[in-house]
Amino acid sequence: QSVNDSKFGKGLQFIAADSSFSLKLGARFQTLYQGSTTSGSGEWKDRLLIRRARLKLEGFAYSPKLEYKIALGLSNNDIGNDNPEMFDNANSIVLDAVAKWHFRPNWELWVGQTKLPGNREHIVSSHKMQFVDRSLLNSRFSLDREAGLQLHHTHQLGQMVLRESAALSMGEGRNIAVNNTGGYSYTAQAEIFPLGEFEGGGAYVGSDIYREESPKLALAAAYNFNDDTNRSQGQLGDFLSGQRDLHTIFVDAMFKYRGFSTMAEFARRSAPDGPVITTTEEGQVDETFVTGDAFNIQAGYLFKSDWEVAGRYTTYNPERETSLLAQEQYTLGLSKYIVGHSLKVQSDVTLQDFPGRDNGYQFRLQLEVAL
Amino acid sequence: QSVNDSKFGKGLQFIAADSSFSLKLGARFQTLYQGSTTSGSGEWKDRLLIRRARLKLEGFAYSPKLEYKIALGLSNNDIGNDNPEMFDNANSIVLDAVAKWHFRPNWELWVGQTKLPGNREHIVSSHKMQFVDRSLLNSRFSLDREAGLQLHHTHQLGQMVLRESAALSMGEGRNIAVNNTGGYSYTAQAEIFPLGEFEGGGAYVGSDIYREESPKLALAAAYNFNDDTNRSQGQLGDFLSGQRDLHTIFVDAMFKYRGFSTMAEFARRSAPDGPVITTTEEGQVDETFVTGDAFNIQAGYLFKSDWEVAGRYTTYNPERETSLLAQEQYTLGLSKYIVGHSLKVQSDVTLQDFPGRDNGYQFRLQLEVAL
Amino acid sequence: QSVNDSKFGKGLQFIAADSSFSLKLGARFQTLYQGSTTSGSGEWKDRLLIRRARLKLEGFAYSPKLEYKIALGLSNNDIGNDNPEMFDNANSIVLDAVAKWHFRPNWELWVGQTKLPGNREHIVSSHKMQFVDRSLLNSRFSLDREAGLQLHHTHQLGQMVLRESAALSMGEGRNIAVNNTGGYSYTAQAEIFPLGEFEGGGAYVGSDIYREESPKLALAAAYNFNDDTNRSQGQLGDFLSGQRDLHTIFVDAMFKYRGFSTMAEFARRSAPDGPVITTTEEGQVDETFVTGDAFNIQAGYLFKSDWEVAGRYTTYNPERETSLLAQEQYTLGLSKYIVGHSLKVQSDVTLQDFPGRDNGYQFRLQLEVAL
Repeated sequence: QSVNDSKFGKGLQFIAADSSFSLKLGARFQTLYQGSTTSGSGEWKDRLLIRRARLKLEGFAYSPKLEYKIALGLSNNDIGNDNPEMFDNANSIVLDAVAKWHFRPNWELWVGQTKLPGNREHIVSSHKMQFVDRSLLNSRFSLDREAGLQLHHTHQLGQMVLRESAALSMGEGRNIAVNNTGGYSYTAQAEIFPLGEFEGGGAYVGSDIYREESPKLALAAAYNFNDDTNRSQGQLGDFLSGQRDLHTIFVDAMFKYRGFSTMAEFARRSAPDGPVITTTEEGQVDETFVTGDAFNIQAGYLFKSDWEVAGRYTTYNPERETSLLAQEQYTLGLSKYIVGHSLKVQSDVTLQDFPGRDNGYQFRLQLEVAL
Repeated sequence: QSVNDSKFGKGLQFIAADSSFSLKLGARFQTLYQGSTTSGSGEWKDRLLIRRARLKLEGFAYSPKLEYKIALGLSNNDIGNDNPEMFDNANSIVLDAVAKWHFRPNWELWVGQTKLPGNREHIVSSHKMQFVDRSLLNSRFSLDREAGLQLHHTHQLGQMVLRESAALSMGEGRNIAVNNTGGYSYTAQAEIFPLGEFEGGGAYVGSDIYREESPKLALAAAYNFNDDTNRSQGQLGDFLSGQRDLHTIFVDAMFKYRGFSTMAEFARRSAPDGPVITTTEEGQVDETFVTGDAFNIQAGYLFKSDWEVAGRYTTYNPERETSLLAQEQYTLGLSKYIVGHSLKVQSDVTLQDFPGRDNGYQFRLQLEVAL
Repeated sequence: QSVNDSKFGKGLQFIAADSSFSLKLGARFQTLYQGSTTSGSGEWKDRLLIRRARLKLEGFAYSPKLEYKIALGLSNNDIGNDNPEMFDNANSIVLDAVAKWHFRPNWELWVGQTKLPGNREHIVSSHKMQFVDRSLLNSRFSLDREAGLQLHHTHQLGQMVLRESAALSMGEGRNIAVNNTGGYSYTAQAEIFPLGEFEGGGAYVGSDIYREESPKLALAAAYNFNDDTNRSQGQLGDFLSGQRDLHTIFVDAMFKYRGFSTMAEFARRSAPDGPVITTTEEGQVDETFVTGDAFNIQAGYLFKSDWEVAGRYTTYNPERETSLLAQEQYTLGLSKYIVGHSLKVQSDVTLQDFPGRDNGYQFRLQLEVAL
């Protein structure tokens, strides 16, 4: 065994003898038990699975001004998809493959595939979440990842820190293997930290792991215009037989102080030409874009023992025209952070309230190990 | 080139400067030539392929009491499957993703996906086999890998060592991407080493690579109850339209002494409600579980030159009701272990005896390189 | 961060403390923008994608006389295919998995899957190309990769260096998961360097990156006989319902001197029993092998600033009988090699001339980052 100057949760870390590149190798996996009542019969259906298994290589190439990141998904849950023909019958192993060029102080140009600057909940790594997984807001409205160009800028105004991001991307999602449909996707995001930056990049970390000694607040808004996409959620979802312009807005806030943390998010997507593409002969919606809005708020308190109790409320309101089902979710989470987010056990219980139908229940329990 | 404190066959080995984690990175591949006579015409059909190509990351996380292992399959032969829709149209890259917690001396709790404590031949790594590949017993009756919980216990009685294992798992196999079918799978195994432990974990290594100076014996029995599974072999095989409870038992023994090694295994699977699910209009079996029994015995002698001659006899007797074909196999193997199992060339010739049909022949030649 | 004795472009490099193995870990990705006019409407269709993302592990195992190489493709573009059923419904992640045994001075035996000794343009790594991607000659006639045996020999005659290679392989391409169709594939190649070897293996590197101080020339010829294959291009292409013997010849030359480089290649494939397998009722070709010839010539000049301007002309002439469309391509390339081929931006513009149809245009811009 050779000694590597690193520590648990930080991966293996190397730097070239001539300082011409660095590489950090990380690996992690999540083992998830998930059970829920099925609608109708109320029967309990469950699974135990490797939810995520990932490898990550990151560092700088040639100059510290040029960072790179390659993140690979390995579990079936990470790499599968429902439309193999749109992906060359290939698994989407590559999550991130991006170069980040710090071309001027406070400015970065990103080239490649990575997360778009959308809602905070999605930017928080799946390795650093406060609950077992992200909320319904995210699964319906997230911009996900996509190949493109991104421009990032940071500046300081007294104690305040501001960040602006803009992205130009293709609009039909990561690893797609066909030509661009319709026009491109345009994203703009602005974020402000009125009380200064969070400890350890904590604005993108679930739970107040670093126990902020002074109150910290982040506020952000993002807007995405997806010009003529054919996927029901823009970058994600089913491939539809028609195209629509989609407009999506996100507004979010995060606050942390002495173990207490809260995050709220609002999302709304609209299709000015109407979300519905096809209806059946009986007039029922057959193909539709996912438009409407959602709101998510969550809060937790991290005890000195590194146990956390957290609650989450999410409401999802698709546009009536889409005939999609509205839903409210009440989630109670209990987590033990053994070594921060690098070694933890998380569980949550969710009450799913479908208006006009029986309630549903879900229980999840997850172990994460992350080098 | 930086020096790594390891040696060939042991992977790259790292430990964090603060001893907070370790990582061993291994890689290996097998190049296989395989030819056989086809039944009927007797024509020779052959292939040359990368049989297995794997990456492995293992070590401890945070504390030596918490070990982890991630093993990835990469070759098409490792990751393909016949029922993409049950796997999210994803390749099953993840073989192992498991955390092993030594919560008390002699006790371990395993959480994640890995091999179930079934038959010895399957627990022996595909990297440490005495022949080019495992026997027909294994391909028909093995419990394979699965996400679940396992409890392992070891204790010593004088010179004797005893191990007991128990596993609770889902029952439909590794990387499955749908909810659990029917009930769970329950496995119990007990193993005894009446003459003490083998050198270098040799009870799970093919051939007497370490040339035991005193006789060593291992005896084990395992039982699996798979509650209402829909796969023809429980954790493996076709997805059937009906479900059955399956009971599988394994009994095995291994003996090694001064270059001589022998292993014998018996397996039997039964379905109390009958193995057959559907028949054609003509009364022929259409869908069936694989029930019946099999016996495998193999022995080899490793010469001082690290050449080994080995023989194997396998008999497979499916229940008559299943209409599956019985088979006997006689295999003669010749191996040259250049550096143990880490660099070796193995070949074997098999006579396949199908009662009432022409005999078949198979020849295989394989090179393995394992860092 | 621990120091690794390597430098950017050379990967992480390790050697075991007892010199029993070495391992070089490399990673790279290409982000490609690609747009072209569609035939007919002339509409601009484009994509932005991770063109290639790869991991590579190579070094020696046990003895410096035994080298190994494992190269993995990760992007959808690398691993997808059109005929999942011929590949076990698996992605072809493994590009190379090969052991190279230097069994005598100047002699090497390769066992496993890797590139066949065919045309130079294919042997030049996709990481070291002079243009954004290889030419039409390569996409129609390359022998690609395949599992097999290869024998390589090098010898010196005064200043001259000669290399001869021979390969025996299966004939239906890499990662195929079914038995061999028809006979095997036989490849022979001879290469001569009349003015001595190129700097840094430059005969297999696009552009005169190393700025040869004296003129360097490489000449090679290769011949492949694919006995009864069923893929339209031998090792590549559609799986056809009939089989043919295919004969393919390659002749190529490369010249480099003080920043100037040129490469020319000729390829011809024939099927003595005729390329066409099936025709429609109207007499139109339905299934055909790709026979005919192609010629490619390219040249570039690398300025002291590491900017390169290069031009390429390719003509592809399928046999009339195949009814495939002939094509001529004129390409102008502009590259900036920031750190050789390890960090570069390349772009090219291509005029596609289809006899009897409208011309087409293609533009490509690619960033490559290679550790």
